[in-house]
Amino acid sequence: MSGPTWQMYCPIPLDENGARITLAHGEGARLTRRLIEEHIQPTFDCLELANLPDAAHIVTDTRRLAVTTDCFVVSPLFFPGGDIGSLAVYGAVNDLAVSGARPRWLTLSLIIEEGLPLAVFDCILKSVANTANECCVSVITGDTKVVPCGTADGLFLNTTGIGELVDPVPPGPQSIQTGDRLIVSGPVGRHGIAVLCAREELEFDPPPSSDSASLIDPVAALRQAVGPNVRAIRDATRGGVSAVLHEWAAACDLTMCLREGEIPTSNDIRGACELLGLDPLHVANEGTFVAAIAAEAAEAAVKALQLLPQTQHANIIGEAKVRQIAPVTIYRTLGREQPLDEPAGAALPRIC
Amino acid sequence: MSGPTWQMYCPIPLDENGARITLAHGEGARLTRRLIEEHIQPTFDCLELANLPDAAHIVTDTRRLAVTTDCFVVSPLFFPGGDIGSLAVYGAVNDLAVSGARPRWLTLSLIIEEGLPLAVFDCILKSVANTANECCVSVITGDTKVVPCGTADGLFLNTTGIGELVDPVPPGPQSIQTGDRLIVSGPVGRHGIAVLCAREELEFDPPPSSDSASLIDPVAALRQAVGPNVRAIRDATRGGVSAVLHEWAAACDLTMCLREGEIPTSNDIRGACELLGLDPLHVANEGTFVAAIAAEAAEAAVKALQLLPQTQHANIIGEAKVRQIAPVTIYRTLGREQPLDEPAGAALPRIC
Repeated sequence: MSGPTWQMYCPIPLDENGARITLAHGEGARLTRRLIEEHIQPTFDCLELANLPDAAHIVTDTRRLAVTTDCFVVSPLFFPGGDIGSLAVYGAVNDLAVSGARPRWLTLSLIIEEGLPLAVFDCILKSVANTANECCVSVITGDTKVVPCGTADGLFLNTTGIGELVDPVPPGPQSIQTGDRLIVSGPVGRHGIAVLCAREELEFDPPPSSDSASLIDPVAALRQAVGPNVRAIRDATRGGVSAVLHEWAAACDLTMCLREGEIPTSNDIRGACELLGLDPLHVANEGTFVAAIAAEAAEAAVKALQLLPQTQHANIIGEAKVRQIAPVTIYRTLGREQPLDEPAGAALPRIC
Repeated sequence: MSGPTWQMYCPIPLDENGARITLAHGEGARLTRRLIEEHIQPTFDCLELANLPDAAHIVTDTRRLAVTTDCFVVSPLFFPGGDIGSLAVYGAVNDLAVSGARPRWLTLSLIIEEGLPLAVFDCILKSVANTANECCVSVITGDTKVVPCGTADGLFLNTTGIGELVDPVPPGPQSIQTGDRLIVSGPVGRHGIAVLCAREELEFDPPPSSDSASLIDPVAALRQAVGPNVRAIRDATRGGVSAVLHEWAAACDLTMCLREGEIPTSNDIRGACELLGLDPLHVANEGTFVAAIAAEAAEAAVKALQLLPQTQHANIIGEAKVRQIAPVTIYRTLGREQPLDEPAGAALPRIC
């Protein structure tokens, strides 16, 4: 387990002599039961979990459901603006929200590295529980595995989210048409830069903070404002805004044309990106989405988003045009239209 | 990544110069898309996966569902009788089956250690796909993360299973009554010993083989034979038969009394356990369940199970009695009744 970096943003003081997770906590026997009964169940005040079931039983309001799953391997475990626990909940909830579902249930699986301080474990569980409460989703079942020191990195999480589909479900990127406007819900690149700076101990003051947050309300506001004019929504996580737009361009066979001057970014993220040689459009977000909206509804969509604090900087950043030189292009501030590269990967490992 | 042990039972020849997973495969950009399009989608011939959705959309037949989740960290990745891929599918499917559900959908999340040979990755994906087909469940969505060499151990999997509840759902261990018979569906301890022998390169000939298999048909046969007389069923995974019976004793406040001579075990497992100082009742199974059945229906239950090849050695191994000296007791073959310890853990790490 690495030392200082993952401890720097840990909200609790670390006691070198405090209790730690042992391999025996993962063996499904007495110590596993104690871990569940003394640490997990009291954190999640949930009837389902109280019975330690093989499988949780749920009753849904509709038979049309959305299901999403993600593993979280972020390093460090704590960073400005969040931690692996809140990230794992927002990750599942946001995938459901942008796919047209009301998030309702969550499973939580833990792979713990032997030696993780129990206090850190408790702190992250509490973060999962608080974030789930905030998003009105129930953690209904889970699993705990412990692996020997050196075969994981502190803690990996998996969340699977189940939501109920509510109308209207956006038809998806293949429905994007020439002239549709592209909207981004807030400043881009915050999450990736925040995690990178925390991990590499880059000294920015104040340290860049992640945008990690729930997209439930912004997505609902967008739907209420412009309903069926929403062609596609996607949270711009790994690969950033660029990865989403490249996927969309491939799906609808158009070119996504951006105007650099319209893309919201904060000064600290822009500065860090210049220093690190990164394009903020390639950097992951965890509470920011891209939407394609019919041209006539785009202004109303942006206005509705700007009323919410989290999406007050939402803006129209470009539009879909007939296929040109490249799947995604960008008018740089100095006036030339250039192709925007698809991120190839490897610039920012382990940011979620 | 450890070398020889996890390769020993690998069904494909390993090419030292073959392609390997890199960190860039996990960044959500071009290489991730290629990994998904060229390796994952062709393996899972599934309409849902073809659209690379944030969240898969499903339509259920009933609004009463069961949900289960598990992480798999087994070492080695391949062992006699199975691999991490088939294990991850059977694990989810069996949890659903014993909880009274018909397994239907599966999510699959992967945490891959940088450097894993692509051929091994493909081989395990194929095993997941084949096992899912065998169990009639669809893999509907997934996630891929890559972590740097030395921060995982080859490959970790997570599966979340969703099933539809079918009547009658067993009422559970709190409903167990004095006189109820305890049934085990087959020889105990096979999975844990098979994995342990593979990992530690213990030279038994032939090597002990895991019981890893689907419990869908045996559970269905049990229900059809004795329906509402089934009080509780549980697959005896981590902690073995002993862990299940200790949980049940706590739930119904009775003593689970076993007769050693009635417990099915195979010679190789008994031999290995004696050599290693393990009690087969504490060792994990992955295709064997324990059931509590009303006394009058117990013979019929065992007869129904014995008709299936996988559960041909099913037997009545004891009964529930008023609470005595210990939650679980065992009449040893030599005649004395002794308390059976609850496994405390740590004897067998990373067997699932």
